[in-house]
Order: sequence, then C-alpha cells, then structure tokens
Amino acid sequence: MKKYSVAILGATGMVGQHYIKMLYNHPWFKVTALTGKESVGKKYVEAVRGEAPAPPKEIAEMEVLPTDPKKVDADFVFSCLPTEAARESEPLFAKAGIPVFSDAAAYRMEEDVPLIVPEINPDHLNLVKQQRKNRGWDGYIVTTPNCTTVGLVLPLHPLHINFGIKRVIVTTMQAVSGAGYPGVASLSIMGNIIPYISGEEKKVETETAKIFGRLHDNHLHYDDVEVFATCTRVPTLDGHMESIYVETEKKITPETVTQALEEYVSVPQELNLPTAPSKPIIVRKEPDRPQTRIDVDAGSVPGMAVTVGRIRVEDNRARFISLSHNLIRGAAGGTILTAELAHHMGLLEE
Amino acid sequence: MKKYSVAILGATGMVGQHYIKMLYNHPWFKVTALTGKESVGKKYVEAVRGEAPAPPKEIAEMEVLPTDPKKVDADFVFSCLPTEAARESEPLFAKAGIPVFSDAAAYRMEEDVPLIVPEINPDHLNLVKQQRKNRGWDGYIVTTPNCTTVGLVLPLHPLHINFGIKRVIVTTMQAVSGAGYPGVASLSIMGNIIPYISGEEKKVETETAKIFGRLHDNHLHYDDVEVFATCTRVPTLDGHMESIYVETEKKITPETVTQALEEYVSVPQELNLPTAPSKPIIVRKEPDRPQTRIDVDAGSVPGMAVTVGRIRVEDNRARFISLSHNLIRGAAGGTILTAELAHHMGLLEE
Amino acid sequence: MKKYSVAILGATGMVGQHYIKMLYNHPWFKVTALTGKESVGKKYVEAVRGEAPAPPKEIAEMEVLPTDPKKVDADFVFSCLPTEAARESEPLFAKAGIPVFSDAAAYRMEEDVPLIVPEINPDHLNLVKQQRKNRGWDGYIVTTPNCTTVGLVLPLHPLHINFGIKRVIVTTMQAVSGAGYPGVASLSIMGNIIPYISGEEKKVETETAKIFGRLHDNHLHYDDVEVFATCTRVPTLDGHMESIYVETEKKITPETVTQALEEYVSVPQELNLPTAPSKPIIVRKEPDRPQTRIDVDAGSVPGMAVTVGRIRVEDNRARFISLSHNLIRGAAGGTILTAELAHHMGLLEE
Amino acid sequence: MKKYSVAILGATGMVGQHYIKMLYNHPWFKVTALTGKESVGKKYVEAVRGEAPAPPKEIAEMEVLPTDPKKVDADFVFSCLPTEAARESEPLFAKAGIPVFSDAAAYRMEEDVPLIVPEINPDHLNLVKQQRKNRGWDGYIVTTPNCTTVGLVLPLHPLHINFGIKRVIVTTMQAVSGAGYPGVASLSIMGNIIPYISGEEKKVETETAKIFGRLHDNHLHYDDVEVFATCTRVPTLDGHMESIYVETEKKITPETVTQALEEYVSVPQELNLPTAPSKPIIVRKEPDRPQTRIDVDAGSVPGMAVTVGRIRVEDNRARFISLSHNLIRGAAGGTILTAELAHHMGLLEE
Repeated sequence: MKKYSVAILGATGMVGQHYIKMLYNHPWFKVTALTGKESVGKKYVEAVRGEAPAPPKEIAEMEVLPTDPKKVDADFVFSCLPTEAARESEPLFAKAGIPVFSDAAAYRMEEDVPLIVPEINPDHLNLVKQQRKNRGWDGYIVTTPNCTTVGLVLPLHPLHINFGIKRVIVTTMQAVSGAGYPGVASLSIMGNIIPYISGEEKKVETETAKIFGRLHDNHLHYDDVEVFATCTRVPTLDGHMESIYVETEKKITPETVTQALEEYVSVPQELNLPTAPSKPIIVRKEPDRPQTRIDVDAGSVPGMAVTVGRIRVEDNRARFISLSHNLIRGAAGGTILTAELAHHMGLLEE
Repeated sequence: MKKYSVAILGATGMVGQHYIKMLYNHPWFKVTALTGKESVGKKYVEAVRGEAPAPPKEIAEMEVLPTDPKKVDADFVFSCLPTEAARESEPLFAKAGIPVFSDAAAYRMEEDVPLIVPEINPDHLNLVKQQRKNRGWDGYIVTTPNCTTVGLVLPLHPLHINFGIKRVIVTTMQAVSGAGYPGVASLSIMGNIIPYISGEEKKVETETAKIFGRLHDNHLHYDDVEVFATCTRVPTLDGHMESIYVETEKKITPETVTQALEEYVSVPQELNLPTAPSKPIIVRKEPDRPQTRIDVDAGSVPGMAVTVGRIRVEDNRARFISLSHNLIRGAAGGTILTAELAHHMGLLEE
Repeated sequence: MKKYSVAILGATGMVGQHYIKMLYNHPWFKVTALTGKESVGKKYVEAVRGEAPAPPKEIAEMEVLPTDPKKVDADFVFSCLPTEAARESEPLFAKAGIPVFSDAAAYRMEEDVPLIVPEINPDHLNLVKQQRKNRGWDGYIVTTPNCTTVGLVLPLHPLHINFGIKRVIVTTMQAVSGAGYPGVASLSIMGNIIPYISGEEKKVETETAKIFGRLHDNHLHYDDVEVFATCTRVPTLDGHMESIYVETEKKITPETVTQALEEYVSVPQELNLPTAPSKPIIVRKEPDRPQTRIDVDAGSVPGMAVTVGRIRVEDNRARFISLSHNLIRGAAGGTILTAELAHHMGLLEE
Repeated sequence: MKKYSVAILGATGMVGQHYIKMLYNHPWFKVTALTGKESVGKKYVEAVRGEAPAPPKEIAEMEVLPTDPKKVDADFVFSCLPTEAARESEPLFAKAGIPVFSDAAAYRMEEDVPLIVPEINPDHLNLVKQQRKNRGWDGYIVTTPNCTTVGLVLPLHPLHINFGIKRVIVTTMQAVSGAGYPGVASLSIMGNIIPYISGEEKKVETETAKIFGRLHDNHLHYDDVEVFATCTRVPTLDGHMESIYVETEKKITPETVTQALEEYVSVPQELNLPTAPSKPIIVRKEPDRPQTRIDVDAGSVPGMAVTVGRIRVEDNRARFISLSHNLIRGAAGGTILTAELAHHMGLLEE
C-alpha cells in the first residue's frame, strides 16, 4: 500500500513533536510537510526546542513551511494549531480539498463538525458529508476533544452504555505540558496548585454532551448528561488525573463497574487500527493507583490507554480516578487514531 | 492573670513545633513541659529536626519528658501524639485530672468525646460533663478533627446554616506535611500525584456528620449530610486544597453564597479569643485563587483563616475551592483555639 | 528628619515588589512614584501579578508612571529595570540631577561607575565625583552587582582581607526567581537542572575583580583574583546556593576561616544602617546547612545575611557553601543598603 | 551458549529492579535467584514497591530467598546489598566459590579487591588472583564504584591519558534515587538543596585515585590525582550532574579536550560487550546541555553513556558538566558490564 502523505500544521510545538514521533514508521501515513509561523524557512530541528529527543534525521532536516494549502502538498493534514490560527487556516485546507484532522478547539462545537473519540462515536464521522454539503468544501474538518475531556469520556463510556449516567462531578489535576511551551511559569506552579484553567471547564462540560450525542438524520442530538467540572493545574509534567463521581440510572456494584471498564473494547480494537491500544481502559486494583508519573504511558501503544483505579461504589454512585496522557491519547495519538478510522471508513479516498 | 501551665504531648513532630511557635507569648497559656518517645532525656532542640526555625531558647533547652501524667506537671495538655500512642496515653492524663486537648484521631469518634471546630459547634464542649460521668474521670478529652475535615466543614458551615446542605462531593489535594516527617518519600511524590491517603476519606465523611450534629440531652445526634470524599497527595509543602461541590435545600445564587461565606463570624470572633482570626473565611474574587503556596498563611492570625474562591453556582448546586493550613488551622492552631474556648466556658478552672 | 522621596523604576517586577516591601516604614526613604512600561496608567496593584502578598493600600492605588525623569518627582531613584531599558533611561535621570541606585547590569562595568557591596567597598562610592565630572551630570549612577556575585564576594571578603585569595572555583545552584517572571518555564526546570545561565559566569568573574579593586587617584584598579564560575539553574524558588573553593596566599585552618567569617562586620554594621544585618555572614555548624529553603531569609534583617556552612580546609585550600537571597541581599536589599550608605556619606544631599 | 545462572543479592531495592530490567533477555546471563531480608518467602512482585514498571512474569513469581550461599544456586552473583549486609554476606559467597560482582561500598577500598570501571581499568580485574591467594577463597569479590565517582572518572579518563590531570575540583548535584527508597523525605528536598551527603565526598576522592591506579606486581599503586569534591542533593529523580574543573599537565584547547572526549572508546567497545554503549561519552554542543531530565538515558544502551557539555578551557584549566544515570551506569549497568568483561577474560569459567 502506498502511504498517504501527511502534513502537520503547527508542528513545532509539544503536540507536533508527539505527532512526529508517533507517525514515524506508521504503516499508512508518512509525514511529508511541516508548518509553523515564526520559524518558517528554518530547518525543523532548529525550530523546535532541543529538549525533546532529537527527531529522526529526515524530519530534522525538513524546512518549516507556512500554514498555507498552496504551499503544502499532502493527502490530508493533522492540525495542532493554536485556536485562532486554526480558526483561520483549517477552513482554507478543507476548501482546497484537503481533509483536516484537528485537535484544535476552534471548530469542535460547530454543528456539522464531528468531535471524535474513536472508541465512543466512530459513526459521527459521517457528519462530514453534511459538512461538505453545507459549506461547499471538497475537504472537511474532523476534530478531537480537549485532552481533559478525553480522560473523562473514555471511562464514562462503558458506564454510560451499561448503566446510564445522569450526572458527573469531576475535579481534574492537570500537568503543565497541557499548557504547551513555555506555558506555565515555574515561579507560578512549583510547590503550588492553581485551581483554574481558562475556558477548560466549559469545554469539558459541553464536549462531553456532544461526544455522547446521537447522529440522526445528519443532525447531532446532544446527550443530556450533566457534567460539573473543576479544573486545576498541578506540578506534574505529563498526564491529567481526574477524580470522577458519577450517578447512574441503573443499579451498580464495584464488580459490575470494574467489569464494564475492564471488558470495554470498541471499533478501533475490533479493526485492530495501528494506533489502537489493545485495551483502551486499564483497571488497576492497587489502592494507590493510578499515579501520574507511573501510569502516564500505559497501554500496548504507550500513552493510548486510560488507567482507572480506586473504584468505590455506594448505591448508584461511583467514584474513581482516571489518568490519561494529555499529549498522546488527549492530543496527537487520539487524532491519529481518528484518521486511521477515517481511512477504514473510506473517508480519505475520496 | 496567672497563665495556665501547659504540656505538649508528642512535641517533637511537625505539629508539636507549630504548637510551640503559636504558644510563644500566648496571653493565657505557657508551655512548661514537652514529651516524646525515643528522644526522652534529650534537650528539645536536639530532639527535633533542625529544619524548622530554631525554637526560643527557653524551649530549646527543655528536657524531653516521657508521656506520663506522673512525670508531667501541667494544668492541661495539648496532644499531637500518633494515633496508637494517643489511644494509650490520653486517658491516663484525663484520669489523673488533666484535661487533654487533642488533634489525634484516637478518640474523635467516641460517643462522649466532643469533636470541636470552635466556630461551628462550641456547645459540644459540654459533652465533657457526660464524659466525666461515664468514665469517672477528673479530667477529660476534647478532640479536634482531621486537618482535611477542618478545611471542608468551615466553609460548609455558613452554607449549611443558611441554605441546608444535603450532599457534598469533595476532592482534596493535600500537602506532604500532612503525613508528618519523614512521611512521604521524595521518590514517591516529586512530579507525581498519589490519589490515596489511608483512612482519610472515611475520617472526612464521618467527622463532618459529627461536627454538624446536635447535642440534645447529653447525646450527640449526627447530622445527615452525605459526604463523598476523594483524598489525594500532591507535591506541595503545606496547605490542603479542596475542590468542593454541594447540593443545597434552599435556592442559592453566587451572591448569596459569597455573602454567607464573607459575613461568617461565630463565637471565637465574638469572644475575641487570642487565636481567633478576625474572619474565619476569606473569599478571594480573582479567577485563579486560592493557591496553595500563596494563600496558606491567610488570616489575621496567620494560617487560621480558610481561603475560598472560584465560587460557581447553578440551581441549588455550588462549587468552590477551599484552602487551609493543615498544620495550623487543621491541627495546632485549631486545638489552641478550642482550649481558649474551653477557658472561656470555665472548663479549665475546675 | 524629612524623608527622601524615592521612585522605583521598573517597579512591577519581582525585585520591584521587594523594594516596596523593604521600603515600607523605612525611616529615611518614602516611595512616592512607581514606573513601568506596558502598565503605565494602571493602578500598581493591577500592574503586578497578584501572587505576592498584596502591597500596602497607598502603594496599591498609585498610578504606574512612564520611566521618564520629567514625569517622576523624586529626590533619588532605585532602578530595577531590564538591562536595555536601564541603558537608555538611567542616564536621563542622572543628567536631570537625580541620583540613580541600580541593580541593573547596564552600567556596572563602566570605568567611572561604582559597583558597590556596602560591606566591601564603601569607599568606591566616591567614584561618583569623577563620574559627574566626566559626564557633566548633576546626578549620578551607582550600581550593585549581579545577585550571584553578591553571594560569592561577601564570604570571600573576610578571607581576602585576612588570607589573600588567589583563585576561586565556584559552582552555583540558582533559584528560578533569579530569572524574573515568567522567567523559566515549568516544563524546562521541574525535576531538572539546567547548567547554563546566559552571561552569568562572565558577570560573576569580572564583577568580583572590580568590587575587590582599589580606588586610587579617582581610578579603580581591579583586583587580580582569578574566578572560574559555573552557573546552573535548579528547581528552587528563592535563594542562590554556591559551592565555593578558594586558594589562599596565607596558611589557613578550619578555625581561622570560621573565625574570619563569623567575626566579619564592616561599615554598614558600624554605622548601624537601617537595612544592615547585625551580622552580614552567619556561619552554620550543622553538617547539612545552609539549605536553600530553610536559610534563605537569614539575618536580623531577613534575607540580608549570607549563610555559610560546610567549611572544609586542606593546606591553603578552603571549600564552603554560601547561600544568599537573590532578590533581597542580591538585589533590592543590597541596593537600599547602598543608598543608606550614600546618605551617610552626604551623597544624597547635594 | 548456555547462559550463566545469576542471583541478585538485595534484589528488592531500586538498583535491584534495574538489574532485573537490564538482565532480561541478556545473551549470556539469566536471573535464577533473588535475595532479600524482610521479604524472604514473599513473591518478588510483592516484595518490591509497585512503583516501577511491573517485572516480567517469571521474575515476578520468584520467591525471595535469604542472602545465604547455601540457599542460592547460581554461577555468580550481583550484589546491591546495603553496606553492612554486604560486609557480612559477600565474603560468604566468595568463600563458597561464587564470584561476587558488587556495587556495594563494603570492600571497594580493600587492597586486593578490584574497583572496576570497564573502560578505564579492565586490567585491575587480575587482582582477583591475588585476592584468592590472600584469602584462600574459591570465589572472589569484584567491586564497582560509587555512582558519583563513575560520572566523574569516565570523562576524566580520556583527559588523564591525553593531558595528565593534576587536580580536580568537582561539585555534584545528585538525584534523590541515589539515596534509595524511601531515602530522602519529600519535606526535606522539595524546592530545596541539601549540600551534604554523608561519606560521599571521601568516596569520590579516594575511589578516583584507586581506579586510575596502576597494577604492578599484583599490587595496586594509587594515582596521585588530587580531587576536591562537594556533594549536594537536589530535587531531581534520576541522574547525577557534576560541575567539573580540572588542571592538566599538558596544554589543552577546547578542541583537543572535545576531541579526546568524543573519540574515547575502550575495551568494552572493542569487545562489543552486550551492555557496552557504542560511545561511553557523548559530547553535546548546545550551550545548555546536558540536562538531568533530558539526558539521563543517553547512550546506545540507555543510561550507559555519560553526557558531557559546556566545555570551557583557559590555559591548562578545563571546566565542563557531566551527567550520568546513577542507577544504570553508576550501579546496575556498570556492574553488569564488569561481569561481561570478566566473562571475556575467562574469570567466570574457573
């Protein structure tokens, strides 16, 4: 099989570096272009901060291009642009007939833009037909959620299917890499907790309802799950921990909750997609797990599984801890998996 | 006024050092004895780790005594003993006619032992009469809650009074000093979150119901507030942050919740007790406060006020963040304030 | 005595906040103006980050002014401007007849600009006469050293006087506050050491030779001490630690070195200047001191003493550890002490 | 080739876990026994803290044995016992005819015990013949240095060979994992530097002289290099950074120093030993490298290369930074490489 040529829009940031790492030796996709802003014209290796492991040689030597569909030759693109840049540039690619798979926030909540977690709502990808019709585009935009939403909805999904979730109260403890580079000042966060991340709680609350929604007659009907989120920044490097409380419609026990989480597999696992972890949710039985630093890279594809632990149940209320890698499952990896799904559904061929 | 002579049981630990600091120059109490275990016979300054600011000279030179009422000459004692040591020693002092004010967990949940937060349930101190009768003691034991409970119940109290609290879901982010010294290994917590503290969640849940209980006919009737707690350890030094969600019986708005918290004063403020902060709750309006490192010492008596921020209200649900100093308001300071209250109520004179 | 009116140039940064704190209730100086750049026209309290303790009310309400001698009414100014801004603005004040006391790097190494550590080279202040003549200024510029230089030269001074220092090899471990706000990204420094601070080693090496120099015929003759510095950034908040090795001309023993350090007092102590610590150097005898977090605020004026420990001597080689507060003794406090000295020498009256 | 059966003495600690990881799939050695103390009789997986990645299944299920040559069946053993336990147990194995490769400190400085860094002094292994004769043992003890010594002597070696080193002044910044588990309390080290590690400086100074010594007539003649070490503990997890200053006999330039370090290979590389990194020293040219968190796992065998950077030269003085993995090159990996060398020299066959 000839590989798809892929460009990464906004490739010089932290998520961009994870795309490059995860796409290296990818069986279907090959990175052929990288775009940036201030660094246009530089070699990629000079455009990124030298702190991550050095990129492979052929990537390191690539010239950073402007984020412009006329300058970028690719079958489709991954976008990890900042919100405002995404708002401006992503439609230009879609209009030019180039599918965009984006973890940027700009178009996530648009009515005709799918917001995908491949295990949860693969069928929402079909929204792109409506999107093309609405907008007269040859290409399309597919989005993936905020990193914090991902770590919430993945463990909620099997519970929602099995027991019906009515209400969720969640407090997050998010790593500094979630704010990008330079992001959070060391003076602000060392030995400290900042209980606020601008805009984050609203994203978690609304994205969850959209992801759990039902596609009907080319329209997405939001789920009526209630989510109350409190998002905090903590002095960890990678990995978002979430303390989750749910109220279910059906009766639950610790055993049925554990079983639902442990046995959960979905379309990406059934299709054996290259970036799909064999188990999207790993349940730890030790009393003090998951822990951010220890469990962040969990999964048969490292960083693609969400780790769940401390399951406690009273009546129809469950509490548990979730941990997910914000840059992998919550960004680059989740979006790559979405594109793999799109390929399987024939959406890359058109 | 002649000062009461006071002994500190278990004085060599971190809470003990805070007792000494807070009692230095206290208008009513004077430290005259310090007890320990392995360090008996040493000078106090050699028994404590040298990391805290050096104690005042007359304290530094005191000999550490065994925790034995026959060896300790004091009008009453403060106990910050480990649980098992408290279980054994505190009754010996009470029996010997020496009142014990303890932040140890051993007797907190006994039926005839008051569990006091001076602003919330000062009247519970009257339980000591029943306790003395039950147990035939000349002295008595008065306890104060777990540090995490304190940071929860103080901001809940004005809401409970004004709006009736039905249910509380709380996730805590607790500093390492809460585990004492040496406590948490640096290898375990640096750049990490551990979402588990043994026994802590049960303490928070049951102590809250007792503190909010009503004393009737010398019996304590627990409040029926439901508390669901998740306790985590984070890499901060001092100060427990709590992300709190409450459901109230009466209608609330952000304004009424803020007002109830800001205007809250109680008996210790009215009596102008020496260790009472002028405002037990400080409400911050900035979007990103309280923060652990910045707000931990809040209050007109440093560390005695709880800081609340990020108040959000929907229908009869409120979310907010609380921050309290676990070693001061949550331990030494809270217990000193309790003894001051006991003095006012004549309970030290008998 | 009528207080001098004082402006702080570049007042909204971290050093500026320390000036304000240290000058509050100062017996001789009164802050009457604050300058900034982007924040001109705002209230001071809105111009600074809210992380530090709130400034006193009359300071909080001051309007931030442009850094322009025509807009600022003051008897003299303290400057904590960034280097380039200092290069441009400080001469304008000096020319306008307003003495400038600066911890900025811009003019430190100019031939006719004194670089002062009040205990070491108070006589160098006399260079301002030559400076005024050279430049035709009514005012003048007096500078204080880089924060890392201060923590080195203070403990070196008594050794230099007593034993003659030939060569110094120093490795520093510098706190993140030394880089200002936002300064070092949390992603860069958490759990990490960065063994490089741009330009810092050269500053330490050349400033030391100037500070130890001799003023002769209005010319400064540099000392010929050799300094080899390696500067690293470490994940601490405040306080620069330095591991120092010196080779002396005269014979030394642990006792003579300790005595020279402990007995060291100089002009500021003799004059009892308001910001002078009673002992500029505190020697700790414990094997594991000084420690950054514990000893950073040492001194009768907190943060103004340098703490020295781990003194080891072989032949004419001594090793020891120094710790100093980079924002206080190394910046705001050191410069205030310099202005106090200037007042005593009559240099503020003219 | 039949693999040697290997026991790990003191296998439940942090270094033990690294032995297991590095020996898994080793071409020559196979772990067949694990010993411990409090955990004797438990499964290995229950004896170690669950924080490291889980050991492979067949190791996880092994029963922890007592550290007793009668209970342990192995061709040779690796020892990572605490010093006192090593002093007692290692000779029992040697006497029982079982070679001991140890990173414990107990016998490092004994006259007839080799102290090996395979690249530097492979010939010192021949000392075991004298040792066996002296002690009447069928087996023998071979030791490897303190982790901090390793990170110093490896980059010094090519400079010593090429330019002659007279004097070394070194300040170390050592990670908390060097103190084992639980080791350093989080309260002691978070946001702090502790400039003292008991006994460490003496080890670095004396071990260096032994490692650089010459074996002559079965006697080891120490090198006369002078080393002045200052060892500090910093809040990093893994990786010891060292700030090194050397005075050489011959003239040096930045280029000749860099070349000597970059071109350095030795016996393990020539023999292509399984655990030998292709380059024992990696030189970084960026101004701000090596960094602890980024470079700790450097090397073609991860963690086996020492990274050097910030090379600065004046006259015959060089300064540079070294970074090495204290648990891999400085412990488990260095000792495994030593046993591989012993195998090549026929010392395992006898």
